[in-house]
Amino acid sequence: MNVVDIIRKKRDGGALSREETEYWVSGMVRGSIPDYQVSALLMAFFLRGMNDEETATLTDVMAHSGSMFTPSDLGGFTVDKHSTGGVGDKTTLVLIPLLAAAGLKVGKLSGRALGHTGGTIDKLEAIPGFHTNLDRARFLDLVRRTGLALADHTADMVPADRILYELRDVTATVDSLPLIVASIMSKKIAGGAQAIVIDVKTGAGAFLPRLEDSRRLAQALVSIGTRLGRKMAAVITDMSQPLGRTVGNAIEVREAIETLHGKGPEDLATLSCELGAELLVFAGRSATHSEAVAALRAHLADGTALAKFGELVEHQGGDVRVLERPDLLPHAVRTVLVTAKAPGTVRGLDALAIGRAANVLGAGRTKKDDAVDPAVGVEIARKVGEKVEKGGPLAILHVNDEQTAAEAKRLGESAYEIAEGGAPCAPPVLIVERTHGTR
Amino acid sequence: MNVVDIIRKKRDGGALSREETEYWVSGMVRGSIPDYQVSALLMAFFLRGMNDEETATLTDVMAHSGSMFTPSDLGGFTVDKHSTGGVGDKTTLVLIPLLAAAGLKVGKLSGRALGHTGGTIDKLEAIPGFHTNLDRARFLDLVRRTGLALADHTADMVPADRILYELRDVTATVDSLPLIVASIMSKKIAGGAQAIVIDVKTGAGAFLPRLEDSRRLAQALVSIGTRLGRKMAAVITDMSQPLGRTVGNAIEVREAIETLHGKGPEDLATLSCELGAELLVFAGRSATHSEAVAALRAHLADGTALAKFGELVEHQGGDVRVLERPDLLPHAVRTVLVTAKAPGTVRGLDALAIGRAANVLGAGRTKKDDAVDPAVGVEIARKVGEKVEKGGPLAILHVNDEQTAAEAKRLGESAYEIAEGGAPCAPPVLIVERTHGTR
Repeated sequence: MNVVDIIRKKRDGGALSREETEYWVSGMVRGSIPDYQVSALLMAFFLRGMNDEETATLTDVMAHSGSMFTPSDLGGFTVDKHSTGGVGDKTTLVLIPLLAAAGLKVGKLSGRALGHTGGTIDKLEAIPGFHTNLDRARFLDLVRRTGLALADHTADMVPADRILYELRDVTATVDSLPLIVASIMSKKIAGGAQAIVIDVKTGAGAFLPRLEDSRRLAQALVSIGTRLGRKMAAVITDMSQPLGRTVGNAIEVREAIETLHGKGPEDLATLSCELGAELLVFAGRSATHSEAVAALRAHLADGTALAKFGELVEHQGGDVRVLERPDLLPHAVRTVLVTAKAPGTVRGLDALAIGRAANVLGAGRTKKDDAVDPAVGVEIARKVGEKVEKGGPLAILHVNDEQTAAEAKRLGESAYEIAEGGAPCAPPVLIVERTHGTR
Repeated sequence: MNVVDIIRKKRDGGALSREETEYWVSGMVRGSIPDYQVSALLMAFFLRGMNDEETATLTDVMAHSGSMFTPSDLGGFTVDKHSTGGVGDKTTLVLIPLLAAAGLKVGKLSGRALGHTGGTIDKLEAIPGFHTNLDRARFLDLVRRTGLALADHTADMVPADRILYELRDVTATVDSLPLIVASIMSKKIAGGAQAIVIDVKTGAGAFLPRLEDSRRLAQALVSIGTRLGRKMAAVITDMSQPLGRTVGNAIEVREAIETLHGKGPEDLATLSCELGAELLVFAGRSATHSEAVAALRAHLADGTALAKFGELVEHQGGDVRVLERPDLLPHAVRTVLVTAKAPGTVRGLDALAIGRAANVLGAGRTKKDDAVDPAVGVEIARKVGEKVEKGGPLAILHVNDEQTAAEAKRLGESAYEIAEGGAPCAPPVLIVERTHGTR
C-alpha cells in the first residue's frame, strides 16, 4: 500500500477502505507519513466528502490510535455527554454528578475553552485547588468507586485526533462535517461510553448557528455512533441566548452549584435533566423518558447530585466548602452595569456577543496557551421575554482589567434588542429537536 | 494577509489575486509557509481548478521566484522550445544548433530523464567530456557570442517550481492542467525567451496520450504564454511510435548527428524544421512558414547547423571528434535482436513499450538519483507501415547488463503489432495540429 495511491483515490472521489484508513492513520501517528501528505488528504476529504461507512471507519481507527477505556475498565453502564459548545453552557457541571447519583458510570474526558465558548476544565479549575491531572489508575479507581471522575484529554488517548486537529486548523479544513464527526466521536469511543448524548447547539452562539446545519451534524453524529455500536441520542437545543444567567468560570460554577441545590435557573435544570434522561433510558434505569426526567429531578431536589459533586471536588483536590460558601470562589475587583436606554421587553439577546464580551474580559482564550481569568465574566440580568425599566440592569460585567470594560460594555449593549412598549415576547424554545439511534 | 484565508478562498472555488499568489509563493520559497499548507492548497487547486488569469499570474510569480534571464542578457531575439516528453525524442539536439545557425539566440535550460521519456542533458552527456555545469556569466557569454548554450536548471532559477514539483509528486497533485502549465511556462519565462514553441506529444508514448487532452494542454500553454507577452506556438505531434529510429542516449546523439549531416530519418528532420520554422517566423527572419522551413532545410544541407552543434560540444567540454566519428560514443557490450514471428506489415509500434524497454536496459531512471547508462537503448528496425520477413529484425537492443535483456526483449516484442499479409498500412501523421498566439 502507498499513501500517494490513497490520496489519489480520495482525490478522485473514492471511499477509503478500513485497510487504507488504518494505513494512513497509523503512518501519521508513527510519523512515517509526513504532514504534507496528510494535509493534501484532508483537503481531498473536505472537497470530496466521505460516506457514512468511511466516516465510521475513520472514527473507529482514530479512537484506536492510542490508549482507550472500556466499559469493563469503568465497572458499570458507561455514559457520556458532548456539547458542540455554547455560551454559559455549564450543563456538564450539573449533569455528571446527576448521572453518577443515578448510578451510572461517568469517566469524563473534557477540554478547555477556545474561542467564544467555555470549557468545563477551565470552569472547574476556578474552584481553589481543583485539578484534572489524574493518572489512568486513579481515574479508573474514582469512576469505579464513586461513579465519577473528570480529566483532561491525555496525550496518550486519540493522538490521531490531536495531529489532525492541528493540521485542519492551519489548512482551512476544519469545517468538514465528516471530519468534525470523526473528531468528536473518536474521543467518545475511546472514552468507553456505551451510551452517548450529544447536545447540538443551534442559534447565534452555536458553532453551527443555522438549524439545518445543526440537524445535519446531529444526524451524522447519531449515525456514526450507532454504526460503532453505541446507543446514541442527539438533542438540538437553543443557543440563540446564553444558557442560565452566568457566562464565565467561577460565576458559572456558582450557578451550577445553585442548580444542584435545586435553586438554579430553570433552563439549566431542564436541559440537564432532559439530556440525562436519554442516558437513563438507554441504561435501562428508567422505562420512559418522563420517568427518567422525574428521577433526575428528584436527585436535584434531595441533594444526592450535590453530594456527588462534592465527592468529585474533594477527590480532585478542590475546596469542597464552595458548595455551601460560593464566596470562596474567585471574585472580580469590580462590576460594571449594562443598562437599558429605554423601557421595554427583551426581544433578542445575542449569545455570540455575550460570549465575546466574556472573552474580552478575560474569561476565555483566543490562542491555545492563553491564560484564563477565573473571576471575570458576564451575569445576565434580563433574558428574552423579560421586561426592563429605563436605566434598569440588563447585564452585570465582572471586571478585573479596567482596560477591557469599555469594549465588553459595548458588546453587552449590542447583544440586547429591546422592544419598547409593544407586545410581550416569548422566550425561545429550549429543546428544539431529538434524534435517536441504537443497534 | 494570511495563508489559511488564501487556502479557504481557493477551497471554496475563488480565484487567487496576484497579491495572494505572491504572498504564498514567496512565503513558500522563504520557508515561512510550511509544506503542509502548500500541499492543502495544491489539492484545492487540483479539485477546484484555476482560471487562465490565475494560472498566468501563478506562472509569472513562479518565474520571478529566483534569478532570471532577459532578452537583453542574451543579446538578440531569444527563442526556446519545450517538449512534453517523448520516446526517442532527440529533436532538441537537432533544433537548437539549427536555430543558432539561423541567427537566433538559444539559451537552453534543460532537464534530465524521468520515467519512460528521455532528457536532453543525459543524452548530451553521452558525448565524452560534455558537461552542462556552466555558471551564469559563461552561459550568457556563450549565448551572446555563439547563439547557443545548454545548462541544467540551476538551483537559483525558479525555486518555486522545484518545491512545488516535489510536493505534487508525493501528494497526487501532478496531473492538474493549470499546475502543469505553470510549471512548464514559469521555466520558459525565467529563461528569457521572446518566442516559444511547444511540442505537445500525443499518442501511447506521450505524457497525455489522448488527443483531446493534448489539445487542452496545447491551448492552455499558448494562452498562458501569450498573456505573459510571449509569442507562442504549440504543435501537437505524434508519439504513438518513437521518433526516429533510436531510443537511448549515445544512440540518439548518433542519430541527431546523422540528421545534422543531412542523413537522418525524415521524421526527425521534418519535426525539427517544422518546430524551428514557427520561431523563425516569430523572429521576423522569414515571411512565411514554408520559407522558414526551406531556410532551416538549407542549414541542415549545408553543414552550418552541424558546425553550430560542434561549437556547442567544444565550448561545453565535449569531444568534438564525435561529429565525424560516432564510434567514439559509448557502445553497449552486445546487441539482441527482436524479430518477427511471421511476415507482415507493422500496423502498430507502441512508443510506451519501447520507452519502457530502453528504461529496463538502463537508459532512463525511475528515481531522481538513479544513474543512466549512456550506451544502452533500443534501435528501431521497423516502423509503422514497413514490411518485415518472418524472422526479420524489428528492433535491436543495445545491452550492457545481461539480466535486463529478457525483460527488454519481451517489452520490445509486445510493442509490435504485425498485420500478416493484408493491406498496406499508412504511418501516423507526424504533425497533428498547430495553435498560435501573439499579443
